[in-house]
Amino acid sequence: MERRDFFQSGFAAGLLGLGGTAVLPSVLSASPRRLADGSVRLSSNENPLGISPAARTAIVEGLDLANRYPGASKAPVVDALAAKHGVAPKNILMGNGSTEVNQMFVQLFARVRLVTAHPTYEDVGRYAAPFALPVTQVPLRADYSHDLDRMKEVVDRSSGPTMVYICNPNNPTATVTSSAEIDSWIASAPDNVYFLMDEAYYEYAEEDPSYWSALKWVPDNPNVIVVRTFSKIFGMAGMRLGYAVAHEDTIGRVGAIASYNNTNHFACVAALASLQDDALVERSVDVNARARSVLEDALDELDIERLPSRTNFLMHRIQGDLRSYIDRMKERGWLVGRPFPPMLSYNRVSFALPEDMARFAETLRDFRSHGYV
Amino acid sequence: MERRDFFQSGFAAGLLGLGGTAVLPSVLSASPRRLADGSVRLSSNENPLGISPAARTAIVEGLDLANRYPGASKAPVVDALAAKHGVAPKNILMGNGSTEVNQMFVQLFARVRLVTAHPTYEDVGRYAAPFALPVTQVPLRADYSHDLDRMKEVVDRSSGPTMVYICNPNNPTATVTSSAEIDSWIASAPDNVYFLMDEAYYEYAEEDPSYWSALKWVPDNPNVIVVRTFSKIFGMAGMRLGYAVAHEDTIGRVGAIASYNNTNHFACVAALASLQDDALVERSVDVNARARSVLEDALDELDIERLPSRTNFLMHRIQGDLRSYIDRMKERGWLVGRPFPPMLSYNRVSFALPEDMARFAETLRDFRSHGYV
Repeated sequence: MERRDFFQSGFAAGLLGLGGTAVLPSVLSASPRRLADGSVRLSSNENPLGISPAARTAIVEGLDLANRYPGASKAPVVDALAAKHGVAPKNILMGNGSTEVNQMFVQLFARVRLVTAHPTYEDVGRYAAPFALPVTQVPLRADYSHDLDRMKEVVDRSSGPTMVYICNPNNPTATVTSSAEIDSWIASAPDNVYFLMDEAYYEYAEEDPSYWSALKWVPDNPNVIVVRTFSKIFGMAGMRLGYAVAHEDTIGRVGAIASYNNTNHFACVAALASLQDDALVERSVDVNARARSVLEDALDELDIERLPSRTNFLMHRIQGDLRSYIDRMKERGWLVGRPFPPMLSYNRVSFALPEDMARFAETLRDFRSHGYV
Repeated sequence: MERRDFFQSGFAAGLLGLGGTAVLPSVLSASPRRLADGSVRLSSNENPLGISPAARTAIVEGLDLANRYPGASKAPVVDALAAKHGVAPKNILMGNGSTEVNQMFVQLFARVRLVTAHPTYEDVGRYAAPFALPVTQVPLRADYSHDLDRMKEVVDRSSGPTMVYICNPNNPTATVTSSAEIDSWIASAPDNVYFLMDEAYYEYAEEDPSYWSALKWVPDNPNVIVVRTFSKIFGMAGMRLGYAVAHEDTIGRVGAIASYNNTNHFACVAALASLQDDALVERSVDVNARARSVLEDALDELDIERLPSRTNFLMHRIQGDLRSYIDRMKERGWLVGRPFPPMLSYNRVSFALPEDMARFAETLRDFRSHGYV
C-alpha cells in the first residue's frame, strides 16, 4: 500500500485513532503490533505482544558478548528447559528455530518414508525432498484431526525406518488430534517408527481436555521426539530458537549431525529471561483467547464457516479466489494467508491484539458487502 | 579460576591497572574484550573489538520486530552483499553462520568423497560423517600450505561428485595457500569437482600479494563456492551469520534444502549496519595487525618458533603436553587452544587487543621461566 492510499483508507483512520492520541510518526514506525508500513501481519502465527520485557533487557545487556561464540549463552537455556520438562540436559537438543530441529530429525531418521497429514506444516515434507525420500500425505479427517488409522496403514506397509510427523495442534487448521488416540498408536508401534511430535502451539491448546503433550513417552521411547519453539507463546519468531526433547540416545545421534553453534547468543539470553518471566505464558494465552473470541464472534455474526481453534490462528471459509482475497486484504493493510491446498476456499488468519481483531472484523463486514466472504 | 585466586594473581593486578582507573565492578562484568569472570578468550578467533556501534544501535532499534519472522530483515542484507561483491542477489545464500553454509554444501555436493587438508577447520569433515561420506585428509606441506598436488591426485582417483574444501587462509595454521596455484587447479578441473572455498579470514589476508579471493570464478563456474562470515572481521560470532557466493544454479540447488528462516533478525539488522560502517574493516584489520605484532615480537624475543599469520590468530611451539599448557594458561586467565592433531606441540592463540597481548607476553615470559615454552 502506498503511503497516500494508506491515509485515504479507513484502515489508517482506525490506526490513527488508537489509544486516543493520533501521533503520525509512531503509526509509521514498526512496533511488535504492526510492521513499519502500518500493515498488520496475520499470516505467520506470530505473537503480537512482542518479546518479553525481560528478554529486551537481556538482549541489551548481552550486546557486549555478541562478538563471542554462543556456547556459554546456550548452556543455561538447556538446563532451564531440562528443569521445566523434568528431564536431563542430555534429553534436550537446541535448534535454529524448531524448523531446523525438524530438518535434522527428518534427515537422520526418515530413511524409508515420511508420513504426514495433509494439509499440515509444509517444512517437514520440504526437508525430505532433496534426499529423494518418499513422502506420503494422508488427508485430514472430516473433523480436521489427523487420520491416524490411514497414517498407520501407510506405516505398516513400509519396511525400515519410517517417520510420522504429527503437528498437534495442526498448522494450518488449528485443530487438535486426540492425544489418547496418539498414545494408543505409540504404545503399539515398533521401534523403527519415529514419531516427530510438533508441539509448537502446545500452550494455546492446554485448555483442551483431549489434548496433552507426548513428553511422557520420551524417557523410555527413543522413537518419540517432542519439538517445541520459542517463536509462538514466547514471541521470539525473529530470533530463531526451538528444541527437541527426546531420549538421550536419539538426541546424541542427531547432535552428531547438528550444525555447530546453531543457536545465537541473543536468542539464548532472551530465552532464558523469558523462561524466568513467570507471567509470560499466561499473558500470551489470555490475550490470544480474547483476540480469538473477537474474531470468532465476528465470523459467527456474519455466518462465516470457521474451524475450531486451539492455537493463535484459525481458518475460515471465503467466497471466490483465495489469491484475490489475500490481495484485497493486503490493500486494506492486513497480511493474511497463505494458500494451503487443498483447502483453497479457506483463509488462515493469525490473531493480532484484540483491538486489532475488532478492526479486522470491520474489514470482514466490508468484505461481506462485496461478497468476498 | 575462583574469584579469590583471581585477585591474588598478577593477571588481576594487570587488569585492574588498565586505563589508569581500577574500578572493580567493570572488571568483573563482561565486555567485548573479556568474559564475565575476567578471563580473556584467545581460543575462538573472535574479534576483541566487539560488534560495530552501528550494529548495537540497529539491534536496539530492532527489538520491536523480534517477534516477527526475519524474512524482511534478511532481504536488504542479501542485496547489500550482492552489491559488495558485484553479483546478483540470486548468487548469495545466507546461513546461520558460515558453518551451516558449509554443512549444506557438503550434504548436497559431496556425494562421493570430501577432500580436505590436515589440519584444517574441523566442522566440514564432521558434516560428512553422518552421511557415511568418505573424507580424505591430506597433510599440509612443510610450509603449511594446502598440498594441492596430493589433493588433486585423490580427486582424480575418485569418480562422481567430489568436493574439495580449501580453507584459505587455513585455520588453525593461519597460513595462506597460493591463489595462483588454486586458480590453476580450478581452471583444469571437471564440472563435478566442487571447490568449497572458505574465506572466513579473507580481509586479514588481503595484504598478502599471493592471496586473492576465488570470487572471480563464480559467474561462469557452478562448481566454485566462496564462503564468508560475519563472525570474524565484523565481530559477530555470537549472532550467527555467514553466506555463500556462487553460481545461481548452485545457490538454487542448495537453497532448496536450506532450513527455513535460517538467519535471525538481529544478525540481519546488525549485518546491514556493519556493512554500512565504512571504517569497520579497516579498524579491525589495524587493531589485529598491532596485536599480532606485539605477540610476534614477544615470541621472537623468547625465540619461540611460530608460524606466519595472515589471520587473527597464530600457532606457536610449546614445550611439554598441550593439554597441560592449555590448563596452565586457563589458570592465568587466558583461554587458548584447542588441540589440532597432528600439531600437538603447537598452540593456537587468537589475537586480543594489543594491550591484552602485551599482558599475554608477560605470561609467556613467566611460562619460559617454568620451561613451558
